[in-house]
Formats: sequence, C-alpha cells, structure tokens
Amino acid sequence: MAFSPALTGLIDALRVLPGVGAKSAQRMAFHVLQREREGGRYLARSLEQALACIQHCRDCRMFTENELCDICANERRDPALVCVVESPADVMAIEQNTDFRGRYFVLLGRLSPIDGIGPAELGLDILRERLSRGLVTEVILATGATVEGEATAQYVADLARQHNAGVSRIAHGVPVGGELEYVDAGTLSQAFSGRRPI
Amino acid sequence: MAFSPALTGLIDALRVLPGVGAKSAQRMAFHVLQREREGGRYLARSLEQALACIQHCRDCRMFTENELCDICANERRDPALVCVVESPADVMAIEQNTDFRGRYFVLLGRLSPIDGIGPAELGLDILRERLSRGLVTEVILATGATVEGEATAQYVADLARQHNAGVSRIAHGVPVGGELEYVDAGTLSQAFSGRRPI
Ligand SMILES: [Zn+2]
Ligand SMILES: [Zn+2]
Repeated sequence: MAFSPALTGLIDALRVLPGVGAKSAQRMAFHVLQREREGGRYLARSLEQALACIQHCRDCRMFTENELCDICANERRDPALVCVVESPADVMAIEQNTDFRGRYFVLLGRLSPIDGIGPAELGLDILRERLSRGLVTEVILATGATVEGEATAQYVADLARQHNAGVSRIAHGVPVGGELEYVDAGTLSQAFSGRRPI
Repeated sequence: MAFSPALTGLIDALRVLPGVGAKSAQRMAFHVLQREREGGRYLARSLEQALACIQHCRDCRMFTENELCDICANERRDPALVCVVESPADVMAIEQNTDFRGRYFVLLGRLSPIDGIGPAELGLDILRERLSRGLVTEVILATGATVEGEATAQYVADLARQHNAGVSRIAHGVPVGGELEYVDAGTLSQAFSGRRPI
C-alpha cells in the first residue's frame, strides 16, 4: 500500500525545495492538505507567476519583473560604484543596513570549479561589458568571507584592474567563514564603511 | 528598496509550509528561480492537482482521490479490526512494518483543547458511526505516546467500549514522548504484536 498518486506526486515535488527531505516533504504535504488549502493554492499561483515573469536584470542580474531592476533603473544611484555580491539577499542586507548609493552586480553564486561554476556561470561577461564602458571607478567586493567567496573576490578584482577600476573589499566585522546575509546590521554597516583598497 | 512584487509574493507564499521562516523562504525562492525552474513548475502543478482532487476517505479520513481509500475499498481487509492513528504517515509506517490486515481510522491530529481540537475536529462522529454498525470487535489504539496522544487514546477507548468493542493499545517499544512515525521498523512491529487489552 502506498499513498495515492496525487499525494505521492506532491510529496515528490516538494523535494525540489532546498533542505527538504522525504520526512519534511511528507509533513508539508499533510499540513497543506489538512490545514492550509487556501495557502497551498496561493503558493501554487505565486510559484507560477514568479516563474513566468521573474527574469534577471540586464545589468546586474538581480531578480526583477522588468528589463532593469529598481536600482539599475534609478538614475540617482551612482553608476561609478559597483558592489559585487553573491546573492539577491546580500543586496537587500546592504540596502537595509548601509547608506551605499551605488549600483550592484549579483553573481548568483561563487566560483566553484568542482561544481562546474566558473566565470561564465557567474555572468562575469556582463560585468566585463559594464566595466569596459569606462564609467566605473570603484568595484566593492562584498562576496562572503569563505574560501570560495575570497577566490571569487580575487577573480573579480583582477577583472576590475584590467579595466582600470579601483578595487576595495568590505573588511571589518564579517566573521571568517561566515555568510554575508547572516551578519547583523551594525557589523555589516561597519564592514561597509571600513572597506579598504586591495 | 524591496524585492520585486512577484518575488516578495513567492517568498511570502512559501511561508505557508510548516517550519519555513523568512530566511528559508528566501533561500527556497532563490533556489527555485536560479536552479529549479522546471522543478518549480512541477511543484506548482502538483500542488494544484493535489488540492483539486485529494479528499478524505469517507470511512477512515485517509487522504485519497476516491470516495474510499485503497484500504477501505479492499474487501480482503478485516472490518472487525480498526487501528486508530493520528496521521496518514502512521498508516504508512504500520503498513510497511507490520502484518496488520485490518482497517484504520485516521484522526488527523490529537485532542488538544487549548488549540481548539476536540472530538469533532478529529472526525470521531465518523468513527462512532462505524462502531454503531456493530461489526467492530477490536479497536487498536496507535496514537503517539505523548500526553495528548494518551488522552486521545483514552477518549477513543471510552467511545469503543460504549459500542461493546474490545480495546487494545500498542505497547512495547514506542518510546515515551516519542512520535509514532519516527519509530524504527523493528520497534514498531514489536509494539504492534505486543498490544494488550486495556
Ligand atoms: Zn539591476
Ligand atoms: Zn479509508
């Protein structure tokens, strides 16, 4: 005896979510079917809508429904400063906790040759193109303080120097081995203002 | 600056899943948008399909696409034995690890007055109706060994006795305070065969 086909399918599908194993998927499916049917429909609709309309910003790779994200489309944001981060969550953390008024580049990952993630997968041809226009004076490296984050920062630093842009790395406060998005507000703010050229 | 409306909606919707907080919802949304777009569509379709066609079995409350679940529809399953469990996962665990060939009743919860979960919420009028037909000779109580699970077992035992059905409680092996679905196969099998009248 097994669960019915529709229930088996739902449990299986929930496992596409990161960190969700067989037991959690089962618990999630039961919960939605028993207590959150309206919420479940809302989730299905939100997923479909997000997948249909969310793309990457043409200039910075942030998720957006438009060709350009709100920041890249905002002419009051300084195009001479480009902060390079690993994830969209990092953009949000910096926006909420610092007074940075430049632009971003979102790698959507970090260099990891073992996992087949190289410069192309991080969209670095788009960043190269932006740098080649000659308007960027400073590239601020805000990748995580992990081994791969540091290797990625090094790679982007070399790329920036090839285009005669200054390079800085956010410095104080990000704990070694830590992920940027989990740093508290004060620490992140300090790390940002304490950046130094490398 | 905030995430785009479709992304904000998706992150918000993912929080209907149990155990998913703001950070996990964000991570799940990014993961689906970056790496699992096909999987995300599969999840949306599976959710919609499950919500559209999965109901509760008329006799035992198990999830099913049909009026009766596979077990209740199976005439070779003994209708004189009814095993009462808290969740559909418990049915699966018993089916996979014991040779029980009777039927079930799935409470979809346990008595919890503080949370507003009383006999009606556990569908006990359906069980009463089944007992009143006079065909049930033994009700096997397989609710969890928690305070609420024991109180629920006690309530169902009284109900069974009112209808002159024998009552037993699975006994050995289920650790006190433990949830049934996490018990290993051998322990559960032993607990089942070692049940005794109460
Ligand atoms: Zn952008
Ligand atoms: Zn049934």
